[in-house]
Amino acid sequence: MDNYFVNRRSCRNFKSEKIDIKKLTEIIRQASKAPTCGNMQLYSVIATMDEENLKRLSAFHYNQPAASTAPCILTICADFNRFTQWCESNDADAGFDNFHSFIVAMTDAVILAQQIVTIAEKEGYGTCYLGTVTYNAEEISKLLKLPELVVPVASLSIGVPECIGEATDRIVTDGFLHIENYSVADEKKLEEIFRIHTENPENEKFIMENNKENLAQVFSEVRYPRALNEEVSVSFMQLLKKKGFIK
Amino acid sequence: MDNYFVNRRSCRNFKSEKIDIKKLTEIIRQASKAPTCGNMQLYSVIATMDEENLKRLSAFHYNQPAASTAPCILTICADFNRFTQWCESNDADAGFDNFHSFIVAMTDAVILAQQIVTIAEKEGYGTCYLGTVTYNAEEISKLLKLPELVVPVASLSIGVPECIGEATDRIVTDGFLHIENYSVADEKKLEEIFRIHTENPENEKFIMENNKENLAQVFSEVRYPRALNEEVSVSFMQLLKKKGFIK
Repeated sequence: MDNYFVNRRSCRNFKSEKIDIKKLTEIIRQASKAPTCGNMQLYSVIATMDEENLKRLSAFHYNQPAASTAPCILTICADFNRFTQWCESNDADAGFDNFHSFIVAMTDAVILAQQIVTIAEKEGYGTCYLGTVTYNAEEISKLLKLPELVVPVASLSIGVPECIGEATDRIVTDGFLHIENYSVADEKKLEEIFRIHTENPENEKFIMENNKENLAQVFSEVRYPRALNEEVSVSFMQLLKKKGFIK
Repeated sequence: MDNYFVNRRSCRNFKSEKIDIKKLTEIIRQASKAPTCGNMQLYSVIATMDEENLKRLSAFHYNQPAASTAPCILTICADFNRFTQWCESNDADAGFDNFHSFIVAMTDAVILAQQIVTIAEKEGYGTCYLGTVTYNAEEISKLLKLPELVVPVASLSIGVPECIGEATDRIVTDGFLHIENYSVADEKKLEEIFRIHTENPENEKFIMENNKENLAQVFSEVRYPRALNEEVSVSFMQLLKKKGFIK
């Protein structure tokens, strides 16, 4: 088997070296051979490389080092605009202004994003998803001048790695792989599944720092708290409405 | 560059040969090293390999050959159930019963799906996404006994390829790659972008067969018609409600 896949890790610190646009285009061209629904390619990629634009975009990602040090941020969007325009200019009824079409286009966009990650990393670049893309999706959308039926769903930093982080552990495969039917884990099994994280001394630190009792509380009450999730649920849904994917 | 990426194509016809469960597990284990939000791994994979279950599942995918000939179908789900259960058993407030958490988990799930595709194809297996996963998501959900906060978002056939289809053309990269800002294509540019499909003689056939004037009409009025998109929008949204991701 190809060792790349087990050893890969995200990069959160980049050298200032710019990424060659031809090289980037070639990576993205190759990635576009990834599967896409009905060969419709329901995505767009906006490459931010200009210094001023990078500063503005990075701010919407809270200037995390994975954003602020990156010489290039790709914002990958679910895009039914191009296809709809093409249909309309061909006198065809384009019925893609609905939630299902968003889900289909989002799937296409994330598949493309992951293919870019794999190809870029295999070429020696570092990459990092910026999970914050949905937090300020409306502002990002304005900055990049996204039209109707175009919504950002994945942000990727890409550049020459300064230092690559430690490989992160994953839960055992049978913790998420179910044969024939989903089987709900009981408390004991859950403890076993998550032990790889709870017994990691690195994580002990976060519990202490945040004055919490355990790692689950750090995740759900500090890093991904209910109030924030609920706030972003509302703003992201509003953006889907504004962009025409929800009535 | 690695030639795999430009030459890959999906497989819609499989040999009856079963897929070895150990091999499959190893592919999925390696794929789980793909990026995941906060290392939460917000996905589950349900592997259907039993003959009777495959028949039932394939029916929900309209028995398209990519489903009916497959010795294994993986249903990849956005899953906040496992993480929520773990938080709750640790006395932590798990606030993941909302739309944003679904979007985050769906992203994780699609990234994993695409990583499985790449690793499996590089190992010589054929794969195919079944875009029909959302059409009967509720029925699939029942068949696989999916609990709360678990929603199917990607289905993948996997097996030994019988015959691999022709490589499919993609639009030119600058048709979907935008530098700094999104630029909306005018009619002439759209015509250029889609020419690779409109001038494909293969597609001429579909226009004739369906008694349409052009390819755009075949796509939007026959293959992905408004009424179906709107119907699935409602049913998929209902499933998100039922599973607890939308109030």
